[in-house]
Amino acid sequence: MTDRLLSPTELEAALRAIGAERYHNLHPFHRALHDGKLTKGQVQAWALNRYYYQASIPAKDATLLARLPTAELRREWRRRLIDHDGTEPGTGGVARWLKLTDGLGLDRAYVESLEGLLPGTRFAVEAYVHFVRERSILEAIASSLTELFSPTIISERVSGMLRNYPFITEETLAYFAPRLTQAPQDSAFALAYVKEHARTVAEQQAVLGALKFKCGVLWSMLDALDYAYVTPARIPPGAFRPAEGEA
Amino acid sequence: MTDRLLSPTELEAALRAIGAERYHNLHPFHRALHDGKLTKGQVQAWALNRYYYQASIPAKDATLLARLPTAELRREWRRRLIDHDGTEPGTGGVARWLKLTDGLGLDRAYVESLEGLLPGTRFAVEAYVHFVRERSILEAIASSLTELFSPTIISERVSGMLRNYPFITEETLAYFAPRLTQAPQDSAFALAYVKEHARTVAEQQAVLGALKFKCGVLWSMLDALDYAYVTPARIPPGAFRPAEGEA
Repeated sequence: MTDRLLSPTELEAALRAIGAERYHNLHPFHRALHDGKLTKGQVQAWALNRYYYQASIPAKDATLLARLPTAELRREWRRRLIDHDGTEPGTGGVARWLKLTDGLGLDRAYVESLEGLLPGTRFAVEAYVHFVRERSILEAIASSLTELFSPTIISERVSGMLRNYPFITEETLAYFAPRLTQAPQDSAFALAYVKEHARTVAEQQAVLGALKFKCGVLWSMLDALDYAYVTPARIPPGAFRPAEGEA
Repeated sequence: MTDRLLSPTELEAALRAIGAERYHNLHPFHRALHDGKLTKGQVQAWALNRYYYQASIPAKDATLLARLPTAELRREWRRRLIDHDGTEPGTGGVARWLKLTDGLGLDRAYVESLEGLLPGTRFAVEAYVHFVRERSILEAIASSLTELFSPTIISERVSGMLRNYPFITEETLAYFAPRLTQAPQDSAFALAYVKEHARTVAEQQAVLGALKFKCGVLWSMLDALDYAYVTPARIPPGAFRPAEGEA
Protein backbone atom coordinates (compact mmCIF):
# COMPACT_ATOMS: atom_id res chain seq x y z
CA MET A 1 0.00 0.00 0.00
CA THR A 2 1.09 3.52 -0.72
CA ASP A 3 1.87 5.85 2.16
CA ARG A 4 0.62 9.07 0.60
CA LEU A 5 -2.76 10.64 1.22
CA LEU A 6 -5.35 9.24 -1.17
CA SER A 7 -8.31 11.06 -2.65
CA PRO A 8 -11.68 9.58 -1.65
CA THR A 9 -11.91 7.95 -5.08
CA GLU A 10 -8.43 6.46 -4.74
CA LEU A 11 -9.29 5.19 -1.27
CA GLU A 12 -12.35 3.43 -2.68
CA ALA A 13 -10.22 1.91 -5.43
CA ALA A 14 -7.70 0.67 -2.84
CA LEU A 15 -10.54 -0.90 -0.81
CA ARG A 16 -11.93 -2.61 -3.89
CA ALA A 17 -8.45 -3.90 -4.76
CA ILE A 18 -8.26 -5.56 -1.34
CA GLY A 19 -11.57 -7.28 -2.01
CA ALA A 20 -10.40 -8.41 -5.42
CA GLU A 21 -7.41 -10.13 -3.81
CA ARG A 22 -8.71 -11.27 -0.42
CA TYR A 23 -12.50 -11.69 -0.41
CA HIS A 24 -13.54 -15.25 0.35
CA ASN A 25 -15.36 -15.79 -2.96
CA LEU A 26 -11.83 -16.74 -4.13
CA HIS A 27 -11.46 -19.47 -1.49
CA PRO A 28 -11.46 -23.09 -2.71
CA PHE A 29 -14.13 -24.03 -0.15
CA HIS A 30 -16.52 -21.41 -1.49
CA ARG A 31 -15.97 -22.62 -5.03
CA ALA A 32 -16.54 -26.24 -3.99
CA LEU A 33 -19.70 -25.21 -2.12
CA HIS A 34 -21.41 -23.48 -5.02
CA ASP A 35 -20.10 -25.91 -7.63
CA GLY A 36 -21.89 -28.80 -5.91
CA LYS A 37 -18.65 -30.56 -4.99
CA LEU A 38 -19.53 -31.03 -1.32
CA THR A 39 -21.39 -33.80 0.46
CA LYS A 40 -24.45 -33.00 2.53
CA GLY A 41 -22.33 -33.49 5.66
CA GLN A 42 -19.84 -30.90 4.44
CA VAL A 43 -22.62 -28.43 3.67
CA GLN A 44 -23.99 -29.10 7.17
CA ALA A 45 -20.58 -28.32 8.65
CA TRP A 46 -20.49 -25.03 6.72
CA ALA A 47 -24.00 -24.00 7.81
CA LEU A 48 -23.37 -25.01 11.44
CA ASN A 49 -20.12 -23.06 11.68
CA ARG A 50 -21.39 -20.06 9.75
CA TYR A 51 -24.35 -19.93 12.15
CA TYR A 52 -22.00 -18.62 14.84
CA TYR A 53 -20.92 -15.81 12.54
CA GLN A 54 -24.54 -14.89 11.77
CA ALA A 55 -25.57 -15.09 15.42
CA SER A 56 -22.65 -12.86 16.45
CA ILE A 57 -23.31 -10.10 13.91
CA PRO A 58 -26.04 -8.44 16.05
CA ALA A 59 -23.68 -8.55 19.06
CA LYS A 60 -21.00 -6.93 16.92
CA ASP A 61 -23.44 -4.29 15.68
CA ALA A 62 -24.80 -3.61 19.17
CA THR A 63 -21.23 -3.15 20.44
CA LEU A 64 -20.65 -0.52 17.79
CA LEU A 65 -24.11 1.03 18.27
CA ALA A 66 -23.20 1.61 21.92
CA ARG A 67 -20.13 3.62 20.87
CA LEU A 68 -21.63 5.78 18.09
CA PRO A 69 -21.82 9.47 19.01
CA THR A 70 -24.91 10.75 17.15
CA ALA A 71 -28.55 9.80 16.74
CA GLU A 72 -28.06 9.83 12.98
CA LEU A 73 -25.29 7.24 13.13
CA ARG A 74 -27.14 5.16 15.71
CA ARG A 75 -30.33 5.13 13.60
CA GLU A 76 -28.34 3.93 10.62
CA TRP A 77 -26.64 1.21 12.64
CA ARG A 78 -29.85 0.21 14.43
CA ARG A 79 -31.27 -0.77 11.05
CA ARG A 80 -28.65 -3.53 10.90
CA LEU A 81 -29.85 -4.90 14.22
CA ILE A 82 -33.41 -4.98 12.91
CA ASP A 83 -32.27 -6.80 9.77
CA HIS A 84 -30.53 -9.50 11.80
CA ASP A 85 -32.69 -9.82 14.91
CA GLY A 86 -36.05 -9.13 13.22
CA THR A 87 -39.13 -7.53 14.73
CA GLU A 88 -40.73 -10.61 16.26
CA PRO A 89 -39.73 -14.24 16.94
CA GLY A 90 -38.87 -16.13 13.78
CA THR A 91 -38.00 -13.05 11.73
CA GLY A 92 -34.61 -11.54 10.87
CA GLY A 93 -31.41 -12.90 9.43
CA VAL A 94 -30.39 -15.13 12.33
CA ALA A 95 -33.79 -16.86 12.33
CA ARG A 96 -33.56 -17.29 8.56
CA TRP A 97 -30.14 -18.87 8.94
CA LEU A 98 -31.70 -21.45 11.24
CA LYS A 99 -34.13 -22.33 8.43
CA LEU A 100 -31.06 -23.35 6.48
CA THR A 101 -29.66 -25.52 9.28
CA ASP A 102 -33.18 -26.97 9.83
CA GLY A 103 -33.50 -27.71 6.13
CA LEU A 104 -30.15 -29.50 6.20
CA GLY A 105 -31.44 -31.78 8.94
CA LEU A 106 -29.38 -30.36 11.80
CA ASP A 107 -30.87 -30.32 15.27
CA ARG A 108 -31.61 -26.70 16.14
CA ALA A 109 -30.68 -27.03 19.82
CA TYR A 110 -27.34 -28.56 18.79
CA VAL A 111 -26.66 -25.74 16.33
CA GLU A 112 -27.55 -23.06 18.88
CA SER A 113 -25.47 -24.77 21.59
CA LEU A 114 -22.31 -24.11 19.52
CA GLU A 115 -20.97 -27.41 20.83
CA GLY A 116 -19.89 -28.69 17.43
CA LEU A 117 -18.20 -25.47 16.37
CA LEU A 118 -14.64 -25.58 15.03
CA PRO A 119 -12.25 -23.67 17.33
CA GLY A 120 -11.05 -21.81 14.22
CA THR A 121 -14.59 -20.53 13.60
CA ARG A 122 -15.02 -19.47 17.21
CA PHE A 123 -11.73 -17.57 17.32
CA ALA A 124 -12.28 -15.82 13.97
CA VAL A 125 -15.80 -14.69 14.85
CA GLU A 126 -14.77 -13.50 18.29
CA ALA A 127 -11.80 -11.66 16.79
CA TYR A 128 -14.31 -9.70 14.71
CA VAL A 129 -16.46 -8.79 17.73
CA HIS A 130 -13.36 -7.81 19.71
CA PHE A 131 -12.04 -5.72 16.82
CA VAL A 132 -15.26 -3.72 16.64
CA ARG A 133 -15.25 -3.26 20.41
CA GLU A 134 -11.62 -2.17 20.71
CA ARG A 135 -10.65 -0.27 17.56
CA SER A 136 -11.63 3.22 16.48
CA ILE A 137 -15.17 3.83 15.19
CA LEU A 138 -13.66 4.49 11.78
CA GLU A 139 -11.97 1.07 11.74
CA ALA A 140 -15.06 -0.63 13.14
CA ILE A 141 -17.20 0.79 10.34
CA ALA A 142 -14.53 0.00 7.74
CA SER A 143 -14.46 -3.63 8.87
CA SER A 144 -18.05 -4.00 7.62
CA LEU A 145 -16.96 -3.15 4.08
CA THR A 146 -16.72 -6.77 3.00
CA GLU A 147 -20.41 -6.24 2.23
CA LEU A 148 -19.27 -4.29 -0.81
CA PHE A 149 -18.45 -7.66 -2.33
CA SER A 150 -21.21 -9.84 -0.92
CA PRO A 151 -23.95 -9.45 -3.55
CA THR A 152 -21.70 -11.29 -6.01
CA ILE A 153 -20.94 -14.17 -3.66
CA ILE A 154 -24.59 -14.47 -2.61
CA SER A 155 -25.77 -14.70 -6.22
CA GLU A 156 -23.17 -17.35 -7.01
CA ARG A 157 -23.97 -19.26 -3.85
CA VAL A 158 -27.76 -19.27 -4.21
CA SER A 159 -27.87 -20.22 -7.88
CA GLY A 160 -25.06 -22.76 -7.54
CA MET A 161 -26.50 -24.43 -4.45
CA LEU A 162 -30.05 -24.61 -5.83
CA ARG A 163 -28.75 -26.15 -9.06
CA ASN A 164 -26.31 -28.59 -7.50
CA TYR A 165 -27.78 -29.96 -4.27
CA PRO A 166 -31.07 -31.89 -4.11
CA PHE A 167 -31.30 -31.14 -0.37
CA ILE A 168 -31.29 -27.35 -0.91
CA THR A 169 -34.51 -25.43 -1.65
CA GLU A 170 -35.50 -21.79 -2.12
CA GLU A 171 -36.96 -21.87 1.36
CA THR A 172 -33.81 -23.12 3.08
CA LEU A 173 -31.91 -20.32 1.34
CA ALA A 174 -34.38 -17.69 2.61
CA TYR A 175 -31.54 -15.95 4.43
CA PHE A 176 -29.91 -14.72 1.28
CA ALA A 177 -32.62 -12.92 -0.74
CA PRO A 178 -33.04 -9.96 1.67
CA ARG A 179 -29.27 -9.59 1.89
CA LEU A 180 -29.19 -8.70 -1.81
CA THR A 181 -30.89 -5.39 -0.97
CA GLN A 182 -29.66 -4.95 2.63
CA ALA A 183 -25.95 -5.41 1.92
CA PRO A 184 -25.67 -2.69 -0.77
CA GLN A 185 -27.55 -0.23 1.46
CA ASP A 186 -25.22 -1.03 4.39
CA SER A 187 -22.03 -0.90 2.38
CA ALA A 188 -22.98 2.31 0.56
CA PHE A 189 -23.33 4.01 3.95
CA ALA A 190 -20.08 2.56 5.32
CA LEU A 191 -18.14 3.42 2.16
CA ALA A 192 -19.37 7.01 2.15
CA TYR A 193 -18.51 7.26 5.85
CA VAL A 194 -14.92 6.10 5.49
CA LYS A 195 -14.37 8.19 2.35
CA GLU A 196 -15.47 11.25 4.28
CA HIS A 197 -13.77 10.54 7.63
CA ALA A 198 -10.43 8.94 6.70
CA ARG A 199 -8.58 12.21 6.19
CA THR A 200 -5.01 11.41 7.17
CA VAL A 201 -2.58 8.84 5.85
CA ALA A 202 -2.78 7.02 9.20
CA GLU A 203 -6.59 6.94 9.10
CA GLN A 204 -6.62 5.71 5.52
CA GLN A 205 -4.09 2.99 6.34
CA ALA A 206 -6.22 2.00 9.34
CA VAL A 207 -9.30 1.73 7.11
CA LEU A 208 -7.44 -0.43 4.61
CA GLY A 209 -6.07 -2.54 7.47
CA ALA A 210 -9.58 -3.02 8.88
CA LEU A 211 -10.84 -4.38 5.59
CA LYS A 212 -7.85 -6.72 5.29
CA PHE A 213 -8.49 -7.90 8.84
CA LYS A 214 -12.13 -8.64 8.05
CA CYS A 215 -11.23 -10.47 4.83
CA GLY A 216 -8.91 -12.57 7.03
CA VAL A 217 -11.83 -13.39 9.35
CA LEU A 218 -13.98 -14.72 6.52
CA TRP A 219 -11.08 -16.43 4.75
CA SER A 220 -9.83 -18.22 7.85
CA MET A 221 -13.34 -19.52 8.58
CA LEU A 222 -13.25 -21.29 5.21
CA ASP A 223 -9.65 -22.46 5.83
CA ALA A 224 -10.84 -24.13 9.04
CA LEU A 225 -13.81 -25.77 7.28
CA ASP A 226 -11.77 -26.95 4.33
CA TYR A 227 -9.06 -28.40 6.58
CA ALA A 228 -11.48 -30.10 8.95
CA TYR A 229 -13.99 -31.49 6.48
CA VAL A 230 -12.52 -31.60 2.97
CA THR A 231 -8.82 -31.87 2.07
CA PRO A 232 -8.40 -34.59 3.61
CA ALA A 233 -10.90 -34.30 6.43
CA ARG A 234 -9.20 -33.75 9.79
CA ILE A 235 -11.99 -32.96 12.18
CA PRO A 236 -10.54 -31.67 15.46
CA PRO A 237 -11.48 -33.32 18.76
CA GLY A 238 -15.00 -32.38 19.88
CA ALA A 239 -16.20 -30.77 16.63
CA PHE A 240 -19.30 -31.70 14.60
CA ARG A 241 -19.08 -35.04 12.80
CA PRO A 242 -21.51 -35.65 9.92
CA ALA A 243 -23.69 -38.74 10.22
CA GLU A 244 -22.39 -41.83 8.39
CA GLY A 245 -24.76 -41.54 5.43
CA GLU A 246 -23.96 -37.88 4.89
CA ALA A 247 -20.18 -37.86 5.04
CA MET B 1 -18.18 -35.18 31.07
CA THR B 2 -19.95 -36.13 34.24
CA ASP B 3 -22.14 -33.59 36.01
CA ARG B 4 -21.48 -34.75 39.58
CA LEU B 5 -18.99 -33.20 41.97
CA LEU B 6 -15.55 -34.74 41.51
CA SER B 7 -12.94 -35.34 44.17
CA PRO B 8 -9.69 -33.40 43.57
CA THR B 9 -8.10 -36.63 42.35
CA GLU B 10 -10.97 -37.27 39.95
CA LEU B 11 -10.77 -33.70 38.68
CA GLU B 12 -7.07 -34.18 37.94
CA ALA B 13 -7.86 -37.42 36.11
CA ALA B 14 -10.53 -35.65 34.04
CA LEU B 15 -8.04 -32.89 33.15
CA ARG B 16 -5.44 -35.45 32.13
CA ALA B 17 -8.04 -37.26 30.01
CA ILE B 18 -8.69 -34.02 28.10
CA GLY B 19 -4.97 -33.73 27.40
CA ALA B 20 -4.81 -37.34 26.26
CA GLU B 21 -7.52 -36.62 23.67
CA ARG B 22 -6.94 -33.01 22.67
CA TYR B 23 -3.34 -31.92 23.30
CA HIS B 24 -1.58 -30.88 20.10
CA ASN B 25 1.16 -33.53 20.33
CA LEU B 26 -1.50 -35.65 18.55
CA HIS B 27 -1.79 -33.21 15.64
CA PRO B 28 -0.44 -34.37 12.25
CA PHE B 29 1.59 -31.15 11.87
CA HIS B 30 3.41 -31.77 15.14
CA ARG B 31 4.23 -35.31 14.11
CA ALA B 32 5.48 -34.15 10.70
CA LEU B 33 7.58 -31.46 12.41
CA HIS B 34 9.45 -33.75 14.74
CA ASP B 35 9.66 -36.63 12.26
CA GLY B 36 11.63 -34.46 9.84
CA LYS B 37 8.90 -34.48 7.21
CA LEU B 38 8.85 -30.72 6.71
CA THR B 39 10.85 -28.47 4.41
CA LYS B 40 12.87 -25.62 5.85
CA GLY B 41 10.21 -23.22 4.55
CA GLN B 42 7.52 -25.11 6.47
CA VAL B 43 9.60 -25.06 9.66
CA GLN B 44 10.09 -21.32 9.13
CA ALA B 45 6.32 -20.88 8.84
CA TRP B 46 5.85 -22.76 12.12
CA ALA B 47 8.47 -20.72 13.96
CA LEU B 48 7.19 -17.42 12.56
CA ASN B 49 3.59 -18.12 13.53
CA ARG B 50 4.44 -19.62 16.90
CA TYR B 51 6.46 -16.48 17.64
CA TYR B 52 3.21 -14.58 18.06
CA TYR B 53 2.04 -17.09 20.63
CA GLN B 54 5.32 -16.81 22.56
CA ALA B 55 5.33 -13.02 22.36
CA SER B 56 1.73 -12.87 23.63
CA ILE B 57 2.27 -15.11 26.66
CA PRO B 58 3.72 -12.30 28.82
CA ALA B 59 0.74 -10.08 27.84
CA LYS B 60 -1.56 -12.92 28.85
CA ASP B 61 0.26 -13.42 32.13
CA ALA B 62 0.36 -9.69 32.90
CA THR B 63 -3.39 -9.49 32.27
CA LEU B 64 -3.94 -12.21 34.85
CA LEU B 65 -1.34 -10.77 37.22
CA ALA B 66 -3.33 -7.53 37.25
CA ARG B 67 -6.42 -9.41 38.43
CA LEU B 68 -4.91 -11.64 41.11
CA PRO B 69 -6.01 -10.74 44.64
CA THR B 70 -3.03 -11.64 46.86
CA ALA B 71 0.71 -10.99 46.97
CA GLU B 72 1.28 -14.74 47.14
CA LEU B 73 -0.58 -15.37 43.90
CA ARG B 74 0.99 -12.38 42.21
CA ARG B 75 4.50 -13.49 43.20
CA GLU B 76 3.84 -16.91 41.74
CA TRP B 77 2.48 -15.45 38.52
CA ARG B 78 5.23 -12.81 38.31
CA ARG B 79 7.75 -15.63 37.99
CA ARG B 80 6.16 -16.51 34.65
CA LEU B 81 6.72 -12.98 33.39
CA ILE B 82 10.38 -13.23 34.39
CA ASP B 83 10.69 -16.56 32.57
CA HIS B 84 9.31 -15.10 29.36
CA ASP B 85 10.53 -11.49 29.40
CA GLY B 86 13.90 -12.16 31.08
CA THR B 87 15.85 -9.86 33.35
CA GLU B 88 17.79 -7.91 30.71
CA PRO B 89 17.70 -7.53 26.92
CA GLY B 90 18.32 -10.80 25.09
CA THR B 91 17.19 -13.03 27.98
CA GLY B 92 13.91 -14.82 28.58
CA GLY B 93 11.73 -17.10 26.51
CA VAL B 94 10.62 -14.60 23.87
CA ALA B 95 14.24 -13.63 23.12
CA ARG B 96 15.18 -17.32 22.95
CA TRP B 97 12.38 -17.92 20.46
CA LEU B 98 13.92 -15.24 18.24
CA LYS B 99 17.16 -17.26 18.27
CA LEU B 100 15.15 -19.99 16.61
CA THR B 101 13.71 -17.70 13.93
CA ASP B 102 17.21 -16.16 13.45
CA GLY B 103 18.72 -19.63 13.11
CA LEU B 104 16.12 -20.50 10.50
CA GLY B 105 17.21 -17.49 8.44
CA LEU B 106 14.12 -15.35 9.02
CA ASP B 107 14.55 -11.59 9.20
CA ARG B 108 13.97 -10.56 12.80
CA ALA B 109 12.19 -7.30 11.94
CA TYR B 110 9.83 -9.23 9.67
CA VAL B 111 9.09 -11.79 12.38
CA GLU B 112 8.45 -9.11 14.99
CA SER B 113 6.28 -7.09 12.59
CA LEU B 114 3.76 -9.97 12.52
CA GLU B 115 3.10 -9.09 8.88
CA GLY B 116 3.40 -12.65 7.63
CA LEU B 117 1.22 -14.16 10.34
CA LEU B 118 -1.66 -16.44 9.36
CA PRO B 119 -5.01 -14.92 10.38
CA GLY B 120 -5.79 -18.25 12.08
CA THR B 121 -2.73 -17.84 14.31
CA ARG B 122 -3.61 -14.28 15.17
CA PHE B 123 -7.20 -15.12 16.08
CA ALA B 124 -6.28 -18.17 18.17
CA VAL B 125 -3.60 -16.34 20.15
CA GLU B 126 -5.82 -13.33 20.74
CA ALA B 127 -8.67 -15.62 21.82
CA TYR B 128 -6.35 -16.91 24.55
CA VAL B 129 -5.45 -13.41 25.76
CA HIS B 130 -9.13 -12.39 25.72
CA PHE B 131 -10.13 -15.55 27.58
CA VAL B 132 -7.68 -14.80 30.39
CA ARG B 133 -8.84 -11.20 30.54
CA GLU B 134 -12.57 -11.94 30.58
CA ARG B 135 -13.13 -15.23 32.38
CA SER B 136 -12.93 -16.02 36.08
CA ILE B 137 -9.50 -16.26 37.71
CA LEU B 138 -10.13 -19.96 38.20
CA GLU B 139 -10.72 -20.45 34.47
CA ALA B 140 -7.78 -18.23 33.57
CA ILE B 141 -5.44 -20.32 35.72
CA ALA B 142 -6.96 -23.57 34.43
CA SER B 143 -6.32 -22.49 30.84
CA SER B 144 -2.57 -22.67 31.57
CA LEU B 145 -2.84 -26.38 32.35
CA THR B 146 -1.75 -27.47 28.89
CA GLU B 147 1.71 -27.15 30.45
CA LEU B 148 0.94 -30.41 32.26
CA PHE B 149 1.54 -32.09 28.92
CA SER B 150 4.30 -29.93 27.46
CA PRO B 151 7.45 -31.69 28.77
CA THR B 152 6.55 -34.68 26.59
CA ILE B 153 6.02 -32.63 23.45
CA ILE B 154 9.18 -30.58 24.08
CA SER B 155 11.32 -33.69 24.44
CA GLU B 156 9.88 -35.19 21.25
CA ARG B 157 10.30 -31.92 19.40
CA VAL B 158 13.88 -31.21 20.44
CA SER B 159 15.26 -34.68 19.86
CA GLY B 160 13.30 -35.13 16.62
CA MET B 161 14.25 -31.76 15.18
CA LEU B 162 17.94 -32.08 16.07
CA ARG B 163 18.06 -35.52 14.49
CA ASN B 164 16.08 -34.71 11.37
CA TYR B 165 16.95 -31.21 10.21
CA PRO B 166 20.46 -30.10 9.23
CA PHE B 167 19.44 -26.46 9.72
CA ILE B 168 18.51 -26.99 13.40
CA THR B 169 21.14 -26.77 16.17
CA GLU B 170 21.14 -26.98 19.97
CA GLU B 171 21.55 -23.22 20.03
CA THR B 172 18.55 -22.46 17.83
CA LEU B 173 16.48 -24.67 20.14
CA ALA B 174 17.67 -22.78 23.24
CA TYR B 175 14.07 -21.85 24.00
CA PHE B 176 13.09 -25.34 24.98
CA ALA B 177 15.62 -26.50 27.59
CA PRO B 178 14.52 -24.08 30.36
CA ARG B 179 10.88 -24.95 29.68
CA LEU B 180 11.57 -28.53 30.80
CA THR B 181 11.98 -27.25 34.36
CA GLN B 182 9.73 -24.15 34.18
CA ALA B 183 6.64 -25.87 32.80
CA PRO B 184 6.37 -28.55 35.52
CA GLN B 185 6.78 -25.90 38.22
CA ASP B 186 4.08 -23.74 36.60
CA SER B 187 1.67 -26.57 36.01
CA ALA B 188 2.13 -28.06 39.49
CA PHE B 189 1.03 -24.73 40.96
CA ALA B 190 -1.91 -24.32 38.60
CA LEU B 191 -3.06 -27.90 39.11
CA ALA B 192 -2.95 -27.58 42.91
CA TYR B 193 -4.83 -24.28 42.63
CA VAL B 194 -7.71 -25.63 40.57
CA LYS B 195 -7.94 -28.81 42.66
CA GLU B 196 -8.32 -26.66 45.76
CA HIS B 197 -10.60 -23.94 44.35
CA ALA B 198 -12.96 -25.76 41.99
CA ARG B 199 -15.44 -26.80 44.65
CA THR B 200 -18.78 -26.86 42.87
CA VAL B 201 -19.92 -28.80 39.83
CA ALA B 202 -20.14 -25.53 37.89
CA GLU B 203 -16.59 -24.54 38.85
CA GLN B 204 -15.23 -27.96 37.94
CA GLN B 205 -17.01 -27.89 34.59
CA ALA B 206 -15.61 -24.39 33.99
CA VAL B 207 -12.09 -25.67 34.74
CA LEU B 208 -12.51 -28.58 32.34
CA GLY B 209 -13.96 -26.22 29.73
CA ALA B 210 -10.99 -23.88 30.11
CA LEU B 211 -8.53 -26.66 29.40
CA LYS B 212 -10.56 -27.79 26.37
CA PHE B 213 -10.60 -24.20 25.13
CA LYS B 214 -6.82 -23.93 25.48
CA CYS B 215 -6.27 -27.25 23.71
CA GLY B 216 -8.41 -25.79 20.91
CA VAL B 217 -6.13 -22.73 20.73
CA LEU B 218 -2.99 -24.83 20.26
CA TRP B 219 -4.69 -27.35 17.96
CA SER B 220 -6.19 -24.73 15.67
CA MET B 221 -2.79 -23.02 15.32
CA LEU B 222 -1.46 -26.28 13.84
CA ASP B 223 -4.61 -26.70 11.71
CA ALA B 224 -3.92 -23.27 10.19
CA LEU B 225 -0.25 -24.12 9.55
CA ASP B 226 -1.00 -27.52 8.09
CA TYR B 227 -3.68 -26.13 5.80
CA ALA B 228 -1.63 -23.15 4.64
CA TYR B 229 1.75 -24.82 4.18
CA VAL B 230 1.39 -28.60 3.94
CA THR B 231 -1.68 -30.51 2.75
CA PRO B 232 -1.74 -29.16 -0.09
CA ALA B 233 -0.28 -25.74 0.65
CA ARG B 234 -2.91 -23.00 0.46
CA ILE B 235 -1.22 -19.90 1.78
CA PRO B 236 -3.82 -17.19 2.38
CA PRO B 237 -3.38 -13.74 0.79
CA GLY B 238 -0.72 -11.68 2.56
CA ALA B 239 0.81 -14.46 4.69
CA PHE B 240 4.48 -15.53 4.79
CA ARG B 241 5.71 -17.30 1.68
CA PRO B 242 8.90 -19.37 1.96
CA ALA B 243 11.70 -18.43 -0.44
CA GLU B 244 11.87 -20.54 -3.63
CA GLY B 245 14.78 -22.70 -2.49
CA GLU B 246 13.16 -23.47 0.85
CA ALA B 247 9.64 -24.38 -0.17
